[in-house]
Amino acid sequence: MGVKQDIRVAVDAVVFGYESKNNLSVLLIKRGIEPFKGEWALPGGLVMNDESLEEAVERELKEETGITIDYLEQLYTFGKPNRDPRNRVVAVTYFVLVKPNHFTIKADTDAADVKWFNLKELPKLAFDHQLVLDTAKERLKSKLSYQPIGFDLLNDEFPFSDLEHLYMTILEKEIDRRNFRKKMLSFGIIEETDKIEKIGSGRPAKLFRFNKVKFQQLTVNNFHFDIKFV
Amino acid sequence: MGVKQDIRVAVDAVVFGYESKNNLSVLLIKRGIEPFKGEWALPGGLVMNDESLEEAVERELKEETGITIDYLEQLYTFGKPNRDPRNRVVAVTYFVLVKPNHFTIKADTDAADVKWFNLKELPKLAFDHQLVLDTAKERLKSKLSYQPIGFDLLNDEFPFSDLEHLYMTILEKEIDRRNFRKKMLSFGIIEETDKIEKIGSGRPAKLFRFNKVKFQQLTVNNFHFDIKFV
Repeated sequence: MGVKQDIRVAVDAVVFGYESKNNLSVLLIKRGIEPFKGEWALPGGLVMNDESLEEAVERELKEETGITIDYLEQLYTFGKPNRDPRNRVVAVTYFVLVKPNHFTIKADTDAADVKWFNLKELPKLAFDHQLVLDTAKERLKSKLSYQPIGFDLLNDEFPFSDLEHLYMTILEKEIDRRNFRKKMLSFGIIEETDKIEKIGSGRPAKLFRFNKVKFQQLTVNNFHFDIKFV
Repeated sequence: MGVKQDIRVAVDAVVFGYESKNNLSVLLIKRGIEPFKGEWALPGGLVMNDESLEEAVERELKEETGITIDYLEQLYTFGKPNRDPRNRVVAVTYFVLVKPNHFTIKADTDAADVKWFNLKELPKLAFDHQLVLDTAKERLKSKLSYQPIGFDLLNDEFPFSDLEHLYMTILEKEIDRRNFRKKMLSFGIIEETDKIEKIGSGRPAKLFRFNKVKFQQLTVNNFHFDIKFV
């Protein structure tokens, strides 16, 4: 071999959030240093020698944003030789979901600026972060049909119409609301609460709750969450 | 920060093969050096400074085994601090499928020994490679229902019973053969050839072929390959 390997390992996170009847948002930080100084990028940074990759991404999110993570999974590892103009950096990327009541960004972060951006009003992203974001959007879309992932984007209690709207937003198309409701309730993993919420000028809506324990029990017994939108 | 990052990046490959009516096999190499000298491991090695991750895994497979890759995708990145006793190594792992006519291992490899192992007769694996292999088995199983991945484990022309047996082998259970055949043929992506093959003492079987071009055309038009085994 001879030549010493000169590659660094970083973690980056695509953090998605959703607010009632709005589009999806993604959390971005403004870079305080070169390269791409002053541009927006995904939160992340180099892995420390003694921490796992998951610990690294959790630490970076804490330092740079202060949000609370509701769901995290590894997305994909990007390693093209020239994706960072300084050094070769291999980025292990993560897919993160945050419930609306965990959106709050802490005041004193390491980043120059941190902000939620509507996915339809994104700035140009630094590095290959647009590609990373596109990969995460695809992952979110495809998971929707085989994992009850939407619930990590809603508060613990939500009007059913928010769940419908969330699915339509992620899928970027209309769905048959009647069938969707019937199918979703048939799994037995969503339960009605006795609370109602008055939203805007509409009539008061019953609040629902995702029963995670029930879902886990069903999964152990070979239940498959499976909802198709053809 | 201060402390310099001291982490290396490697690629490893889980290479699956399948032979008519047999179990799945995985390609392993015998380690010629410490640690784990003399033990079996997944093929792989350190990434060179100027090659992409995919180029690295293709190079390592060529040097160590000489097999021809029919399908390759990134699997998962393993990065626990102590997975390698020498240095910290982050392993970007790949999932590889090889058709039976591409099984041949070249004679002069870099590895001490290279061999296909039946998944049911595996030796103890070096490092965390059993975990990597288990992850790959799960991936293969779950892909089966939404991607026509099986065809990259069969030769270009195959008796239908091989496809059935392959699915049962990967799913580790019996399937309803009549429904399976009906469903598989209904997609219009498998065509009969005019060839027949005589296998063992059984009656001659018609050979089938997967039409990849047709599948790609259908996919562009929103066709979803989808076969469930509940």
